[in-house]
Amino acid sequence: MRQSELFTKTRKEAPKDETAKNAKLLIRSGFIHKEMAGAYAYLPLGYRVLQRICGIIRDEMNGIGGQELHLTSLQDKRVWEKTGRWSDEVIDNWFKTTLSAGGEVGLATTHEEPLTNLMTEFIHSYKDLPAYVYQFQTKFRNEKRAKSGIMRGREFLMKDLYSFSRSQEEHSAFYEEAKNAYIRIFDRAGIGERTFFTSASGGSFSPYSHEFQTLTDAGEDTIYLDRTRKIAVNDEIYSEDVLKDLGLLKDDLEKVTAVEVGNIFSLGTKFSDAFGLTYIDETNEKRPVIMGSYGIGPGRLMGAIVEVLGGKNEMIWPKEVAPFDLHLIQLSDDEQTKSEAEALYQKLTQLGVEVLWDDRAVSAGAKFADADLIGIPSRAVVSTKALEAGGVEFTDRIEDSVEVVASEVIINRYVTE
Amino acid sequence: MRQSELFTKTRKEAPKDETAKNAKLLIRSGFIHKEMAGAYAYLPLGYRVLQRICGIIRDEMNGIGGQELHLTSLQDKRVWEKTGRWSDEVIDNWFKTTLSAGGEVGLATTHEEPLTNLMTEFIHSYKDLPAYVYQFQTKFRNEKRAKSGIMRGREFLMKDLYSFSRSQEEHSAFYEEAKNAYIRIFDRAGIGERTFFTSASGGSFSPYSHEFQTLTDAGEDTIYLDRTRKIAVNDEIYSEDVLKDLGLLKDDLEKVTAVEVGNIFSLGTKFSDAFGLTYIDETNEKRPVIMGSYGIGPGRLMGAIVEVLGGKNEMIWPKEVAPFDLHLIQLSDDEQTKSEAEALYQKLTQLGVEVLWDDRAVSAGAKFADADLIGIPSRAVVSTKALEAGGVEFTDRIEDSVEVVASEVIINRYVTE
Repeated sequence: MRQSELFTKTRKEAPKDETAKNAKLLIRSGFIHKEMAGAYAYLPLGYRVLQRICGIIRDEMNGIGGQELHLTSLQDKRVWEKTGRWSDEVIDNWFKTTLSAGGEVGLATTHEEPLTNLMTEFIHSYKDLPAYVYQFQTKFRNEKRAKSGIMRGREFLMKDLYSFSRSQEEHSAFYEEAKNAYIRIFDRAGIGERTFFTSASGGSFSPYSHEFQTLTDAGEDTIYLDRTRKIAVNDEIYSEDVLKDLGLLKDDLEKVTAVEVGNIFSLGTKFSDAFGLTYIDETNEKRPVIMGSYGIGPGRLMGAIVEVLGGKNEMIWPKEVAPFDLHLIQLSDDEQTKSEAEALYQKLTQLGVEVLWDDRAVSAGAKFADADLIGIPSRAVVSTKALEAGGVEFTDRIEDSVEVVASEVIINRYVTE
Repeated sequence: MRQSELFTKTRKEAPKDETAKNAKLLIRSGFIHKEMAGAYAYLPLGYRVLQRICGIIRDEMNGIGGQELHLTSLQDKRVWEKTGRWSDEVIDNWFKTTLSAGGEVGLATTHEEPLTNLMTEFIHSYKDLPAYVYQFQTKFRNEKRAKSGIMRGREFLMKDLYSFSRSQEEHSAFYEEAKNAYIRIFDRAGIGERTFFTSASGGSFSPYSHEFQTLTDAGEDTIYLDRTRKIAVNDEIYSEDVLKDLGLLKDDLEKVTAVEVGNIFSLGTKFSDAFGLTYIDETNEKRPVIMGSYGIGPGRLMGAIVEVLGGKNEMIWPKEVAPFDLHLIQLSDDEQTKSEAEALYQKLTQLGVEVLWDDRAVSAGAKFADADLIGIPSRAVVSTKALEAGGVEFTDRIEDSVEVVASEVIINRYVTE
């Protein structure tokens, strides 16, 4: 798209009430807007990043057999009373409100209850299993404080997948597949190298749950990391017994601060028991369904990427999540520069490459400052100087390389990718 | 996808508490699940239809210069007090709740206030205009009754676009463009022929607003339709003066029942005045921004399509919104039939055609009954009988045609489309 048409603008200063780096940088670049503490609107550039992150997650969830659906935000009190989680003492961050027709409703903090309830309609026989179901849906949590920008909100997007299996073995095999899908997601989102599979506290049905923790000082968690083996243990369960159980040696561990960007849980039969979610097996016996849940907050992941890769006045998005594939910067308004920029824009757009074309009548300095902040990793500068040198100046900001090349070279780069 | 893996099943009977045809049929086909009155979950097949409808709308909104963003559901009381619409007497279907940190918040019934407020950050000069901004976002409305299935919910998806223009002329030109985009959307969604541009009551800034009304007995509106000219007037403003003003003749009009599937409004400066959304024009004069709003509920549109095209035990989705492009029905389990079905499935999938392959071990009768209900418009039946006749039985349910053709003919159909 033409940058002259983009309605958002960058700003020099972050709002004074923002303390989180991700929020400061994303507000300055015009990616998000704070509606209130813990609730952010996603503006066009930010929404593009969020959608690309969702695209990666969707791709990987479909790859392991996930079927996408969309549950409701409004929650029926009677459904949640079956597990006792309607109580504010059990879930302490409910938003609840009243129907004008009478009766209380809640806003979903999570979706185990409504989904397990729904699945009792469809799961009866071993032939109906396994089933893997996921959604991208807003969660509402009535947090006392919300100071981590888009990393912890009162309203935020969550991808939650739930698995329904016939046996512990079938569950464990899928749990491993989900773990590997998560590793691929964080790799593709550009923070794989600093994201670690971390054991954390389990529940009644499993000694441990697992988190994916990304190293950053902005994190809320402390983990003990074995860098060589790429695994960690959360401070909340850190003890000599646990280390022994996990085969970790105290001397190999490093105490670091991290943010949880994903988690996977074995739920056992906790929810199936509450809702009577059972199936008839091959020998005509009734058995409970074994469940698991697998969460990633796409907005939190986006915030973590900024915490890790953002600088004081600049950002470099990993390629697969960048708002555009290429930032085309036109530095002057003479006929040759303009037509060269337009031709490159048209050709790339026809190839399906998403290009942000800075065609604005502002100074070169302003254009580069904005481009640094917006953070598109590949940049092509069309200027009289570059045209005289025989082409277009192409910068790969991730590789930190600059070269003047013929525009065909840039086009070929995207054709072969 | 393989139908044996789809976790939803069809059911013979609709739930007794459903009165709306759209809800009955969509629950029977496993497209939706009722969470509570006025709040429906979209199951995989239903979510695919909803996403395809959103895809058409997004395409047309981008085509007229719309920029997509995503506002919040949680709403700040202070923002809404600026127009007086926080009051339950002005908006009578608010859901409101309380922050644990103190203070009231609302759940967005619509988004004029937060967006106008947001735009004051970005619009200052005539160079910043026009701007066209849209989103797909959940709206919450605390309706007293909710008996129309997915056509009127307490929680529903809405596409709302807002226009920000420099002058009445610029606004009117865009209003006409938006109108034409809407006409294309309803055409592509398969109900264009029975959807009519309808004048309805305006506001303080415009004598009329406009609705797109689809003829169906399930509608809540009465309109007076001039079939020849393809325009109508809503009962709510029907009078001799209005007919005269609109150039309509009483004798040409037919009184019909219809459902509103879209609406477009001229908002004038109502919201810009409340938020001080002004710009400096070319002559350095401060002027208010002229606004418009343009809504379509994708779920309501989906419900209207079912009301119009659904039968007692069957549905035929228009091609562009069908959950899959082709329903491939394999009628027996012998080696030849199976490998023919699988080969066709693989080839089409590789071409990007979305195929639902009924590979289940159930009777032919059950497969056809399910296929009729699920409603995919194109059907390919692989059976020993069809193979003996030299190919695959292809049914175009919209054209109501059946023929036995070589599988290459089916593949070519999708290559050339």
